[in-house]
Amino acid sequence: MALDKFKDECAVFAVFGHPEAANLAYLGLYSLQHRGQEASGIVSSDETKHHAEIGMGHVSEVFNESNILQLKGKMAIGHNRYSTHGRSQLKNAQPMAIEYARGPLALAHNGNLVNADVVRQRLEEEGSIFRSTMDSEVIIHLIAKSKKSRFQDQVTEALSQLEGAYSLALMGASEMIIARDPHGFRPLAMGTLGAGYVFASETCAFDLIGAKYIRDVAPGELVVVNNEGLFSYFPFEARKKNHCVFEYIYFARPDSNIFGKSVHNVRKKFGRKLAHEKPVEADMVIPVPDSGVVAALGYAEESGIPFETGIIRNHYVGRTFIEPTQSIRHFGVKIKHNAVKEAIKGNRVVVVDDSIVRGTTSRKIIKMIREAGAKEVHMRISSPPTTHSCFYGIDTPSRSELIGSTYSVEDIAEYLDADTLAYLSIEAMMDALEDRKEDFCKACFDGNYIVPPVYAESQLTLLEKRLAEDEEIDYDRAPATRKTATAK
Amino acid sequence: MALDKFKDECAVFAVFGHPEAANLAYLGLYSLQHRGQEASGIVSSDETKHHAEIGMGHVSEVFNESNILQLKGKMAIGHNRYSTHGRSQLKNAQPMAIEYARGPLALAHNGNLVNADVVRQRLEEEGSIFRSTMDSEVIIHLIAKSKKSRFQDQVTEALSQLEGAYSLALMGASEMIIARDPHGFRPLAMGTLGAGYVFASETCAFDLIGAKYIRDVAPGELVVVNNEGLFSYFPFEARKKNHCVFEYIYFARPDSNIFGKSVHNVRKKFGRKLAHEKPVEADMVIPVPDSGVVAALGYAEESGIPFETGIIRNHYVGRTFIEPTQSIRHFGVKIKHNAVKEAIKGNRVVVVDDSIVRGTTSRKIIKMIREAGAKEVHMRISSPPTTHSCFYGIDTPSRSELIGSTYSVEDIAEYLDADTLAYLSIEAMMDALEDRKEDFCKACFDGNYIVPPVYAESQLTLLEKRLAEDEEIDYDRAPATRKTATAK
Amino acid sequence: MALDKFKDECAVFAVFGHPEAANLAYLGLYSLQHRGQEASGIVSSDETKHHAEIGMGHVSEVFNESNILQLKGKMAIGHNRYSTHGRSQLKNAQPMAIEYARGPLALAHNGNLVNADVVRQRLEEEGSIFRSTMDSEVIIHLIAKSKKSRFQDQVTEALSQLEGAYSLALMGASEMIIARDPHGFRPLAMGTLGAGYVFASETCAFDLIGAKYIRDVAPGELVVVNNEGLFSYFPFEARKKNHCVFEYIYFARPDSNIFGKSVHNVRKKFGRKLAHEKPVEADMVIPVPDSGVVAALGYAEESGIPFETGIIRNHYVGRTFIEPTQSIRHFGVKIKHNAVKEAIKGNRVVVVDDSIVRGTTSRKIIKMIREAGAKEVHMRISSPPTTHSCFYGIDTPSRSELIGSTYSVEDIAEYLDADTLAYLSIEAMMDALEDRKEDFCKACFDGNYIVPPVYAESQLTLLEKRLAEDEEIDYDRAPATRKTATAK
Amino acid sequence: MALDKFKDECAVFAVFGHPEAANLAYLGLYSLQHRGQEASGIVSSDETKHHAEIGMGHVSEVFNESNILQLKGKMAIGHNRYSTHGRSQLKNAQPMAIEYARGPLALAHNGNLVNADVVRQRLEEEGSIFRSTMDSEVIIHLIAKSKKSRFQDQVTEALSQLEGAYSLALMGASEMIIARDPHGFRPLAMGTLGAGYVFASETCAFDLIGAKYIRDVAPGELVVVNNEGLFSYFPFEARKKNHCVFEYIYFARPDSNIFGKSVHNVRKKFGRKLAHEKPVEADMVIPVPDSGVVAALGYAEESGIPFETGIIRNHYVGRTFIEPTQSIRHFGVKIKHNAVKEAIKGNRVVVVDDSIVRGTTSRKIIKMIREAGAKEVHMRISSPPTTHSCFYGIDTPSRSELIGSTYSVEDIAEYLDADTLAYLSIEAMMDALEDRKEDFCKACFDGNYIVPPVYAESQLTLLEKRLAEDEEIDYDRAPATRKTATAK
Repeated sequence: MALDKFKDECAVFAVFGHPEAANLAYLGLYSLQHRGQEASGIVSSDETKHHAEIGMGHVSEVFNESNILQLKGKMAIGHNRYSTHGRSQLKNAQPMAIEYARGPLALAHNGNLVNADVVRQRLEEEGSIFRSTMDSEVIIHLIAKSKKSRFQDQVTEALSQLEGAYSLALMGASEMIIARDPHGFRPLAMGTLGAGYVFASETCAFDLIGAKYIRDVAPGELVVVNNEGLFSYFPFEARKKNHCVFEYIYFARPDSNIFGKSVHNVRKKFGRKLAHEKPVEADMVIPVPDSGVVAALGYAEESGIPFETGIIRNHYVGRTFIEPTQSIRHFGVKIKHNAVKEAIKGNRVVVVDDSIVRGTTSRKIIKMIREAGAKEVHMRISSPPTTHSCFYGIDTPSRSELIGSTYSVEDIAEYLDADTLAYLSIEAMMDALEDRKEDFCKACFDGNYIVPPVYAESQLTLLEKRLAEDEEIDYDRAPATRKTATAK
Repeated sequence: MALDKFKDECAVFAVFGHPEAANLAYLGLYSLQHRGQEASGIVSSDETKHHAEIGMGHVSEVFNESNILQLKGKMAIGHNRYSTHGRSQLKNAQPMAIEYARGPLALAHNGNLVNADVVRQRLEEEGSIFRSTMDSEVIIHLIAKSKKSRFQDQVTEALSQLEGAYSLALMGASEMIIARDPHGFRPLAMGTLGAGYVFASETCAFDLIGAKYIRDVAPGELVVVNNEGLFSYFPFEARKKNHCVFEYIYFARPDSNIFGKSVHNVRKKFGRKLAHEKPVEADMVIPVPDSGVVAALGYAEESGIPFETGIIRNHYVGRTFIEPTQSIRHFGVKIKHNAVKEAIKGNRVVVVDDSIVRGTTSRKIIKMIREAGAKEVHMRISSPPTTHSCFYGIDTPSRSELIGSTYSVEDIAEYLDADTLAYLSIEAMMDALEDRKEDFCKACFDGNYIVPPVYAESQLTLLEKRLAEDEEIDYDRAPATRKTATAK
Repeated sequence: MALDKFKDECAVFAVFGHPEAANLAYLGLYSLQHRGQEASGIVSSDETKHHAEIGMGHVSEVFNESNILQLKGKMAIGHNRYSTHGRSQLKNAQPMAIEYARGPLALAHNGNLVNADVVRQRLEEEGSIFRSTMDSEVIIHLIAKSKKSRFQDQVTEALSQLEGAYSLALMGASEMIIARDPHGFRPLAMGTLGAGYVFASETCAFDLIGAKYIRDVAPGELVVVNNEGLFSYFPFEARKKNHCVFEYIYFARPDSNIFGKSVHNVRKKFGRKLAHEKPVEADMVIPVPDSGVVAALGYAEESGIPFETGIIRNHYVGRTFIEPTQSIRHFGVKIKHNAVKEAIKGNRVVVVDDSIVRGTTSRKIIKMIREAGAKEVHMRISSPPTTHSCFYGIDTPSRSELIGSTYSVEDIAEYLDADTLAYLSIEAMMDALEDRKEDFCKACFDGNYIVPPVYAESQLTLLEKRLAEDEEIDYDRAPATRKTATAK
Repeated sequence: MALDKFKDECAVFAVFGHPEAANLAYLGLYSLQHRGQEASGIVSSDETKHHAEIGMGHVSEVFNESNILQLKGKMAIGHNRYSTHGRSQLKNAQPMAIEYARGPLALAHNGNLVNADVVRQRLEEEGSIFRSTMDSEVIIHLIAKSKKSRFQDQVTEALSQLEGAYSLALMGASEMIIARDPHGFRPLAMGTLGAGYVFASETCAFDLIGAKYIRDVAPGELVVVNNEGLFSYFPFEARKKNHCVFEYIYFARPDSNIFGKSVHNVRKKFGRKLAHEKPVEADMVIPVPDSGVVAALGYAEESGIPFETGIIRNHYVGRTFIEPTQSIRHFGVKIKHNAVKEAIKGNRVVVVDDSIVRGTTSRKIIKMIREAGAKEVHMRISSPPTTHSCFYGIDTPSRSELIGSTYSVEDIAEYLDADTLAYLSIEAMMDALEDRKEDFCKACFDGNYIVPPVYAESQLTLLEKRLAEDEEIDYDRAPATRKTATAK
């Protein structure tokens, strides 16, 4: 989609056994910046003590030569956090770093736990205190409360009480544990660098630092890394794989390989399938940059219609923008995008984007293209209509705000003022995933939540906000309400 | 003393029931800046939620118009933290603000708990996690772990497990509890402002905001303030009062009234007693500014020797200072002080300071005065020799660094190059406190610790650092070692 | 080219007669950020006084809501400055703002004056003082020294003494003068917004603010705008047009129209011509983003070889970058670019970039593409070899650093490790400009300087640095030395 | 006076021939911080080039280890600028650093030129441009315009055209000139440090860096320092000495020696004279800190009434202060001062301050003292009533704002609510200066301006603001109006 309307739940990076651990973590977070721009942090360990640097802003703003130098030790974990609406707060930045009975403990988490709420309520009733509003904090508490003595047993006991999505890096004084939930919702890759090990949300982080990709951390796997070596455990009951298909559609960088496939290739296949399924006669295919570029290329190749860079993106956009008080038409969208009039003028244009959330930005983009002189504007979306919220780590708005959940494709086309509008079908999307099509979560398109969220009685606000408004919701596939004790 | 070698353990401020609670807290902290310059913070409550602003630096650097505006609500607590050596960290700044079973909880603490170490070890064994290295964090955990339902019962249960010094402000969603340890080590005053209540470490904070001083929070008292009114409880067994006499000697502002007496008057009496007890024939009395001013005035009045401002203090000194590589003589001391040569030249000078810690600064000051042309330099200290560390909230160095613990007065005089050196005697100091002389802690002068510190077996570093080095220590009055299970 | 090795001499923006002049200038500079990232500034006039805000950094860092509010008045000029090597300094940022006999005067200048040096020396001999090292400062002095009484006559007198490139905005208290040198080296467009006038280095600035493009300011034109209206003058002898062809090749944004043509269209035509002239059998065409994208599209279209986004650009790169001490291969280039292995692997690849300066970056990019598994790598450059320095506003390195000035294409291909390397010919490049091919400066490709630079005897450092080293230089077409009194 | 209502026109510091020139300049400015807090700057010379660091704020904010390191060379000049009302601007900060025909030139100036206005108008008519609103800029222009070849002759020619107050440091590439106006309005001291020379507005700067005071730069003297040595010239006609007596009353630090006398001693004598001339029966003498301290000591000694620190000053006051919206009584004054109630209560108090400007602060201080329980409040001012503006470098308000110019002492006493009010007489003040009483300017007390200001016809605003309002002004001793061609 054109503007950053969806936000992923962060990037995780970890390195063990390298003399420049903190510097590598910094570089890794740098190449994972697209997964979170609100806050960034690194915690390193010199085998006795943790050293932390966590701040608001981009990786390049949080770190500098002097604070990286103070992050001593051969192991480090790092985290980028996405930008929420409203006032963002340092206390919600990760890695979380605390002390408990076994010494220092740090955690970096990507994903969303669906029963964090009830676990937190139980923990609070038992006397636990919470510093943040992050669901990740319950993981820390459960580890600290475990009566097991080994780090990995504590982590296993903690995670066995949790449901939902997690790609995790945990660090003690001299040991690191990398874990991924049994469904494998979020990506997590493993590699080597010299004699050390590295882990990252996406493989593009390995490319920057020159690390060698080995394999993905498997769903349900617990990887223990310490001075004895690297050990793999599968302490949880196996579950159906449920990778997030939206990572291919939008989040991941095209130069990453996730879930066993190249993001670039899958995304391009979405474009090809879309051209095949929803053809249109036109003079050029133009992407909404940067999110629609690869799918547009696929569409152009399959359809034979020339690809054109008809929209330019301004990459210097800062954090805040001062609007003129006198309204400029389509001002918001123009800050980031501008049409190349001479390319578009007089042509029938296919505009390709990855998805539509509220529809407001797409509408402005189409208007901009029309004003640039396009004869016809055909919108093609390289994913199905987004109709449901995500509970596993993607910051989608509530159902009522998703234009795809309320309106028909025809109505949306009219609202956008597109000559035609067409989405990729769920079937075609799954076909593009070929042999692995069964292993993916597509709940945001069909509402089939494999692990329904569970809320504490006293804290139903999120549920209420997202669901209560939605009378007509189909409860067969809706998130569990308070009545549903726990997931499955 | 001349430079800020001792550091107090912070300032506490609280306000309940005033529409401008956060702004008043800001002003209160402003006037208590001398009690802590490392970090400052305010947490307010709008009856449902807490709002926090905590940062490193002076009050004027942490707060601004816009962040104070966001601290909504009619109640707020604030805290200034002192500056430690080494890297100071935001995670150790107060007030601490967390969520627990009853909702939001914030704490501001002045003083030092002597059994925090063992309590923390016990809590960690039970699964608690710690974010900071502050002893104050155990208070929060004990409150959260209490099975009592009323806030005040939770606090009582928590505090009954703790020993040492605390002047505390605790804030829930709509209720505030102000508490002071049974010995009353640190000051804490209560006042009214309009229909609201205010609490502060020192009364000078009341003067700035125009609040009316009512009385001190009593040792062992728990003051509960909520929408029903203000209620006083004495849930703990009464103990011998043990106010910190060093507050009069150095910490408190002369315009404050603490422990029932004017700081200015007591400090001046110290100077008079000193003149009476340790007279000398001289031409002028000059203070080391600002700490020695009031005592010097007392000395001058009692002795009849003229008072003179023979040393000027530079008040523009910033946080860091760039030294020239070529050594300038007595450079460090000159950054803050300069002698008024024309006043000193040819005279016999009595220099009055409040205390001597390591002696290095006093030595430079005497050299500076001699170079300004003084014929004789007589040093007079308005307190007894500091021979022992403090365990109740004053950041004294270890015994081995205290010049008064190792050397005789004659040896110190020789080291300082003073013609004569004399301290106020313990007896004379206590006499100055008149009717209340029995109510004070003077452990830093005589080692009589009313509540000895207790350390966890695994965390003896502090003890080791402070005591183990000190073979000849008199164990009859020394802090308890690990063998001493718990205090009294 | 891949990295920002060339730098343009800034962006100019001006607005007259609009109530939100400063805000529009801010937006204009925003969309011209690509022309200069070192410093940014705006000066507005409220008809009696100038208001200035100038700072180091990106537009979004220099301006905020509060400082834009203080830039009062209905007229404003703005400037972005490019980033030099070494320490950049605020005193060299523009607009320059001074007071002289007629009141306040501000100037924003894009381009380079070739005789600034001799004029400055003459002015200094007459007693002028200089604050900056900018050649633009001589313009200000010449205006102030003019004995004419009308602003426009002063400006005319000043400019008639200067040679070289200038696209200028000048502002007095209530009048604005926009000027362009007789050769028209740098672009400058004119538009309207409501009842007001706007001027900008590129038309993309008009798109953002919704202004209507009218025409370019003509070479040698002096546009006077004041409360009476807009007036056009041609006070200088006409000269041969000499637009900078490099604006099409690299600098200008593809969505701008400059020198009467669409940058996107011309750039694409360069790609097509290149494909026609320098074909190769291959499986895919990939651009070096962002500079090579449009030409690569042209190449792909003309050749019929599929276009592919084989290199990803990281747009979050900050100002500074902390390198690991252990060398990572091709580290520098990887910070900005990464190859999409799955797209490239096993393919014969045509890599298209706009130009090669030193060759070091291209070499790293080719290595990265090879390591991604390319079977063959064919480099195609959409401009001729850059063999000469620019004296009209483009920050090219000295001749000896230009790989194209010293090595043959074959040698360069070997250095880059390209299977084949080919450049666009000068003839083909000119052909792409169609009817206007005679109107362009291509001195950086052939050394034909229409206006040779003149240096003062005492300040030959620049010349020496750029030329003296170059024994074999062809003096027939070389820059004039001190002997050459003035340019033709 | 209590608050910083008067502002001096800055501090000047210079060092020649020392390997750590910039660091020494930094230290010198540090100790002269009281003479200007708005901006600070240092320019050094490495014999070929100047290096500059100039910024807004305190010395400790402008400089840091890294920017001082870049100020290379063995010679440097520095400047602190005072804080004006309204928006302060970097362009008005000093030293000014420019290039002219002889190379680099830098200037630091303390004082005010009375004919800068007419000279500037003349220069602008001749084509000069001005960057700042500082009168100091004309000096630079006059030097650059001189046809003389030697630096010192250029400076002589420039200064001979100027009237008013200047203590100046000028630096070329390898030479330094220190100059003081023939009347010697502002102080300027000369010293040595190792093999080098140092110059400073006050001698306290020498104490910090360990420099040896040699003598004052004499009125009308031009000191040239270069690699040949130090040379003294007196190129101007001798004039009557006219030192600023207000330096003794308020500006200078008590530990400085200026105009041949100790500031501390003269200030104390003012207090003694005041006690002798304006006695009162009372219980204690209290100063308004810090400005009234030394005079109060003198008053106490002479009168035999005990000196008491009855007012405490808060030294942590930051640049901005956030006021509560609900008014707190006497809020403004309380931010800086608080009364020591226990000291004051029930006593008859003599409050000593150095001067009264508008009277508003004094009024609040008296109210605060009364509220602290004083039985009687007697105000004593250690200077005569301030009745006239200063034109030689002190930022006094216009005559109409000076309470002493409009009201009788009795009326002022009533306004302040003082039981009695008395000023030092002009005669007694002059007597305190003993043998040098003829050498001082006391125009702010009697309006006898030795060099009247001259204004350009077109720029009469300042004059109008200060004088036109004042119909009853005694023109015999008033500043010259536009009719008065030139001074003298």
